[in-house]
Amino acid sequence: MAQTTPNHTQTVSGWAAHDASGEITPYVFKRRENGINDVTIEILYCGMCHTDIHHVKNDWGITMYPVVPGHEITGIITKVGSNVRKFKIGDKVGVGCLAATCLECEFCKDSQENYCDQVQLTYNGIFWDGSITYGGYSKMLVADHRYVVHVPDSLPMDAAAPLLCAGITVYAPMKDQNLLEAGAAAKYIGVVGLGGLGHVAVKFAKAFGHHVTVISTSPSKEKEARERLGADDFLISTDIEQMKAKKRTLDFIVNTVSAKHSLGPLLELLKVNGTLVIVGAPDKPLDLPSFPIIFGKRVVKGSMTGSIKETQEMMDLCGQRNITCDIEVVQTDQINEALDRLAKNDVKYRFVIDIAGKSSS
Amino acid sequence: MAQTTPNHTQTVSGWAAHDASGEITPYVFKRRENGINDVTIEILYCGMCHTDIHHVKNDWGITMYPVVPGHEITGIITKVGSNVRKFKIGDKVGVGCLAATCLECEFCKDSQENYCDQVQLTYNGIFWDGSITYGGYSKMLVADHRYVVHVPDSLPMDAAAPLLCAGITVYAPMKDQNLLEAGAAAKYIGVVGLGGLGHVAVKFAKAFGHHVTVISTSPSKEKEARERLGADDFLISTDIEQMKAKKRTLDFIVNTVSAKHSLGPLLELLKVNGTLVIVGAPDKPLDLPSFPIIFGKRVVKGSMTGSIKETQEMMDLCGQRNITCDIEVVQTDQINEALDRLAKNDVKYRFVIDIAGKSSS
Repeated sequence: MAQTTPNHTQTVSGWAAHDASGEITPYVFKRRENGINDVTIEILYCGMCHTDIHHVKNDWGITMYPVVPGHEITGIITKVGSNVRKFKIGDKVGVGCLAATCLECEFCKDSQENYCDQVQLTYNGIFWDGSITYGGYSKMLVADHRYVVHVPDSLPMDAAAPLLCAGITVYAPMKDQNLLEAGAAAKYIGVVGLGGLGHVAVKFAKAFGHHVTVISTSPSKEKEARERLGADDFLISTDIEQMKAKKRTLDFIVNTVSAKHSLGPLLELLKVNGTLVIVGAPDKPLDLPSFPIIFGKRVVKGSMTGSIKETQEMMDLCGQRNITCDIEVVQTDQINEALDRLAKNDVKYRFVIDIAGKSSS
Repeated sequence: MAQTTPNHTQTVSGWAAHDASGEITPYVFKRRENGINDVTIEILYCGMCHTDIHHVKNDWGITMYPVVPGHEITGIITKVGSNVRKFKIGDKVGVGCLAATCLECEFCKDSQENYCDQVQLTYNGIFWDGSITYGGYSKMLVADHRYVVHVPDSLPMDAAAPLLCAGITVYAPMKDQNLLEAGAAAKYIGVVGLGGLGHVAVKFAKAFGHHVTVISTSPSKEKEARERLGADDFLISTDIEQMKAKKRTLDFIVNTVSAKHSLGPLLELLKVNGTLVIVGAPDKPLDLPSFPIIFGKRVVKGSMTGSIKETQEMMDLCGQRNITCDIEVVQTDQINEALDRLAKNDVKYRFVIDIAGKSSS
């Protein structure tokens, strides 16, 4: 399945998994020439997302090996195509989950290209030239400029990287719910799972003055949730009494958990008409008991990353408000160890790979 | 658990299940005196709802035996309390799922008392005096007038009875979605399950000019769905190819199925941002796979019957547009047989018990 399309002539060093063991090893592959709509990016940092684990281990049964993961990419532009006006050489940029969309459907035309049904992802996707996409666990990326955003100067490139997936994935549904507007009425927001996505969701919610309850299986996370991230309340999701005592108290829940679980106890936390947004993608179906959703006229919604317009908006907001991810930087020879720790949620709160070797290890 | 509250002095003949065998036998019990806010109703007809089966067999583990089921009640007022202005003796009325609510919370004050967290149901509920509520499988009912609606003169009392639960349960979420307004833009609506609820949902949708797709496991229902009920399209939910061909075509789905199933294939039918409303209550959790809800930014909502205001609105609409349920009338000695057939979905489309023996059998 290695890339053979003729214009894929540029040799790139990267890191790939070759089978469902998920072991990552150095991998040299080809990328396309920089086309008229493309920019070439020297990758500096790449965040490690739970989705990477699902892909390298083929949990969803859709992996095309070898897979070069990574869709939380920051870097510097080194080349621009002739059609590109928005970027110039030397720009600090980011690339998230999207590599291509049809550009013609109602969603593409309405800046909602993340819902285009032809969407192709930054890795394990199939680009319009038929090539398989390779992600950010690599030294260089050629990307269509329409799926690239500027990283504000005020943001560090390492701690900004996870904003491209973890950040936008929670930003988009919260914005959709009108929670991230200046002067928005303070709401009671629950954040389920305090990992890469969850900790950014807490930051966004607190930045706009909301009351935040973190809901977690790990009592050990309470102190940091409250003291470092500013959460107002903390619930252990397995503590039935504690959960019951908070029935009908939340307006909105962001559910970031990517393991199978029941939505019932979480839905009970919502007020009537409250909304729970699913942004984690377990490989087995979630349990949805009918009583809690029916009796509370509650809403369960999905949300799939964000549009490029929303991603730029979020980046600009993060630049203005100094919102970044809490990260642990790892070197390229530590990727396997980091993936193992990530699988155990043993990270505060996101691993970022120092692709260019610019951080001290 | 029989009724012992002192003011429960009126002897009533009814039909009850006494254990989880679910067998219904004649049962004589007491109802309260007609209080100042009450009306007394001579019951003429009572529809048979799937919920009745769940209760008589204790599927949900919440049944208080003996249980007198029935929450699709029509009858004639025979007595009115001194506080009652809205009704007079001889009025044709209906009673649905609600027996009592707190009358003081934000939902009660906003005509959404069906979402009051103190709601008590017409049977197997606990009334404010501590008594267990007994439903419409009985000759007479004492009901708080605030949970009673007028039945328009133009509607037959037998075919109107199931509107009190089956009808309002689909009416409320469709109205909530702005689908049941004069001049509403025509939408693509799916109705899952062509039973008591489903067939009324088709009638409401067609009355307002929508395109209706019935989704069913029973190929045998297609002819009648199209020819009798006016459905525009019909999908066999187990036919994977047929379902795939209709991906992203529907705006809204009413899911009336009360058996466990996966929401995945149904969600795939929805357009981006489309909504599926759950009104059936399986005793086991539904399967909610994350990909279809995430990739299509889709919405799963619950809806719990309707408010009394909405129920009266629906009744008036049905009177004006001549919308009733398609029913099979059964006599009181046929209740067990009818429940058995209902469990097999062997009814078009609702059994109604001729409580007063006024129909020819």
